Amino acid sequence: MCQLLGMNANTPTDVMFSFAGLATRADEHKDGFGIAFFEDPGLRLFVDHHSARQSPVAELVKRYPIRSGNVIAHIRKATQGKVALQNTHPFMRELWGRYWVMAHNGDLKGFQPRLHGSFRPVGGTDSELAFCWLMQELAKAHASVPPIDELTRTLAELLPIPARHGTFNCLLSNGQALWAHCSTHLHWLHRAHPFGAAHLADEDLSVDFGPLTTPGDRVALVATQPLTTGEPWVAMGTGELRVFVDGKAV
Amino acid sequence: MCQLLGMNANTPTDVMFSFAGLATRADEHKDGFGIAFFEDPGLRLFVDHHSARQSPVAELVKRYPIRSGNVIAHIRKATQGKVALQNTHPFMRELWGRYWVMAHNGDLKGFQPRLHGSFRPVGGTDSELAFCWLMQELAKAHASVPPIDELTRTLAELLPIPARHGTFNCLLSNGQALWAHCSTHLHWLHRAHPFGAAHLADEDLSVDFGPLTTPGDRVALVATQPLTTGEPWVAMGTGELRVFVDGKAV
Repeated sequence: MCQLLGMNANTPTDVMFSFAGLATRADEHKDGFGIAFFEDPGLRLFVDHHSARQSPVAELVKRYPIRSGNVIAHIRKATQGKVALQNTHPFMRELWGRYWVMAHNGDLKGFQPRLHGSFRPVGGTDSELAFCWLMQELAKAHASVPPIDELTRTLAELLPIPARHGTFNCLLSNGQALWAHCSTHLHWLHRAHPFGAAHLADEDLSVDFGPLTTPGDRVALVATQPLTTGEPWVAMGTGELRVFVDGKAV
Repeated sequence: MCQLLGMNANTPTDVMFSFAGLATRADEHKDGFGIAFFEDPGLRLFVDHHSARQSPVAELVKRYPIRSGNVIAHIRKATQGKVALQNTHPFMRELWGRYWVMAHNGDLKGFQPRLHGSFRPVGGTDSELAFCWLMQELAKAHASVPPIDELTRTLAELLPIPARHGTFNCLLSNGQALWAHCSTHLHWLHRAHPFGAAHLADEDLSVDFGPLTTPGDRVALVATQPLTTGEPWVAMGTGELRVFVDGKAV
């Protein structure tokens, strides 16, 4: 099982604390990591086929406060596809003049969709194949980027199709919203005023968000397992799709 | 004027020395930098809208020896498009199940091609527009990835079209080869056995490649201006297209 982390915020926010929490789980998930930061329509995508525990790229991410409205991170335990850069999540494509990013946790068996559009996998994972198919189907469903609620309706029709072939916990973003689809394990959390302290579940590290935030700030986090103790993480159900916009579950 | 750096090698090679040379020119070119490393079909793309002099991402690139067969780097002085992540070169798209990367130096005036395919710019630069058009035309010319010499023939027909609209020094790679098109300023260099010492033109830094290489290693470098003194950099001519494969000019 890989581990996922997603963040959606109404104010550009760094994820150094949450990523540090995720990276402590990298002993078991040593086959690479990746993290995508949207800054407006722009995107930074850091990937490494080294573990997030040892990778100098992960060190940079832990120390350099990149403020972003939408983040997707993934630490990988290889199940399908060898350990190589081209198999490292998140994957990125451009559609309708926007970057799209997806990371996936789980295995799909026998999902062999026909790719007749403009999106082809570079690596050998079931995840990138599912992402390419998803981009192809979105491109067929809308001529240009539709409003978020329309996109969500289309995704609600599409995401169950690969999910029928196995486990499909996935995070998707185009920089405007964060979509989370749960098959087995995904939890989400809403942080808003008054901000308090949080303690990492896996490491002796706490942070008090009070002095770091303003009353209008809102942040939503999604993770495979709750990253902190003492905060009201909500477990998602099988087949549940949630969309987060401006730091709120819609 | 921005500055370009490209590297093509027959053995995965790091560009820490050359990138250090490029980064010393970042005082003038302070509007961001980017560098793309192909590792087999996989790709790492680091971009930052901070100067390569100050960016923590550039620090990482200078210190972490990422070995790659094809590298394209760019330091930017904004002329068209604001200083923002989405306007930072190199740009990346996927075509035929391969990542493609392009960086451009120069300005295009009145190049407004019709984009009717699957590639749309995310940012506001003439460079990304030209790249999207190029990907669209390549996709029309070949059904799947053709041999390098066929690609070069197609590129030789396509690249003069944007070049008519201004200055179009550009570097392009799909991880199999590095293509360099010159309008005004591009220089290339071939390093092979016996490897000697090189001295950076802009900084008091030398490296002796002898102990770091084996007799079979070959590296080709392309840069806006020669990066080193005492090595036989070759100036490219206006309209010249060169392709580098396995560390050699073909």
